[in-house]
Amino acid sequence: MPNPTAAMLTIGDEILSGRTQDTNMSHLARALAAAGIDLREARTVPDVAAEIVASVNALRTRYDHVFTSGGIGPTHDDITADCVAAAFGVGIDVREDARAILATNYANPEVDLNPARLRMARIPEGATLIDNPVSKAPGFSLGNVHVMAGVPKVFEAMVAGLIPRLTGGRPLLSATLRADFPEGLLAGPLGEVARAHPEVAIGCYPFDRNGVFGANLVLRAQDPAALAAAEAATQAMLDALRAPA
Amino acid sequence: MPNPTAAMLTIGDEILSGRTQDTNMSHLARALAAAGIDLREARTVPDVAAEIVASVNALRTRYDHVFTSGGIGPTHDDITADCVAAAFGVGIDVREDARAILATNYANPEVDLNPARLRMARIPEGATLIDNPVSKAPGFSLGNVHVMAGVPKVFEAMVAGLIPRLTGGRPLLSATLRADFPEGLLAGPLGEVARAHPEVAIGCYPFDRNGVFGANLVLRAQDPAALAAAEAATQAMLDALRAPA
Repeated sequence: MPNPTAAMLTIGDEILSGRTQDTNMSHLARALAAAGIDLREARTVPDVAAEIVASVNALRTRYDHVFTSGGIGPTHDDITADCVAAAFGVGIDVREDARAILATNYANPEVDLNPARLRMARIPEGATLIDNPVSKAPGFSLGNVHVMAGVPKVFEAMVAGLIPRLTGGRPLLSATLRADFPEGLLAGPLGEVARAHPEVAIGCYPFDRNGVFGANLVLRAQDPAALAAAEAATQAMLDALRAPA
Repeated sequence: MPNPTAAMLTIGDEILSGRTQDTNMSHLARALAAAGIDLREARTVPDVAAEIVASVNALRTRYDHVFTSGGIGPTHDDITADCVAAAFGVGIDVREDARAILATNYANPEVDLNPARLRMARIPEGATLIDNPVSKAPGFSLGNVHVMAGVPKVFEAMVAGLIPRLTGGRPLLSATLRADFPEGLLAGPLGEVARAHPEVAIGCYPFDRNGVFGANLVLRAQDPAALAAAEAATQAMLDALRAPA
């Protein structure tokens, strides 16, 4: 059976303005690879309701899972929960279990849980909460859309709790070989290895360290035997390139 | 006149697998903000031709500019140039000016410009070259699609050469105010400031530094007067929150 597929949707003007360097995508990518869920696409959109709704709907119909990051705090620019509810055509309101979780954050919840903070207990109808061990305000899963915070510490904690609940597949395995040749000399023989091992995705990532040109060859596959065979073929190719003419 | 709009398309398995942390998007974002070109969306897709072609076509019809990163090297997984040609329905072949530029990289071009390296001189019909002062192999602009390398040093050099050729608009200005209050207390009054200043996008980015909860308030606008007015209103709001009850 093929692995489940996934997309990530990052929401936030701060990413598209270049103010904030996103790190949530690569974190999620590694967690999904280990769980056997294939991350196929990532999108970043601004804090604009129509864009968020359209992206959620485009991605949730195409992939088995959609993971979102950002826009679930208490301020006016946090509109993700409303947009996900709108994308599914369901209502959204303060939910008692979410309010109770939030209340544990405050010394005096009657006063401290002001209207802004209560926004973080607004959960779309039919959603399941995602635990937030860092700052309490929960994320949620609605259908195949998993809505999480943008703050990396919170996002990562939510991912850690969520992923074990999802049905995964075969982990994406990888092997890296370092080649001390410029990419232009590797390309021909490496292409032959790639054609002979179609089950293995082979990437070539050049580097230039202190004037030494080389490349990291990264092999990725779900099948350990296929990966091992491609790795051996790549190593043999490198050995042949190194041999004196 | 409204600013031109833009999208970024990042191409590469290494990003979606989490192996490589992308930094090109935030670099481009800052360059575009300074040039008055509005980055509205970013997508990341794998080294899969159908995905690249579909994304190029979706984005180029929707935005004034599309900037791509990755997949223009000499190896078998570098398929971006072919995919962009396919998206536009034009041919692609080795072009003499690109080959001449590439040749300057090698001591003995007759021998060193092997078939793999010559792939980097394959340019779609009708494209304009983008200069690569780092490693010579050029990028190109075809219509409103600007195709650049994935290696950050090369990508950044190409952006520096390309942006001045494009017609920009009003730069995106920003101001940041640091608030020493938790987000949940800021949210109400900040929302009122945001509603009173609809020309200014106001983002609230919480932090927790050694147990001190606060937030950076980032105001973004094209109009300096609108930005200054919103900044003054935000400052007044913060002063009021600080005043003893």
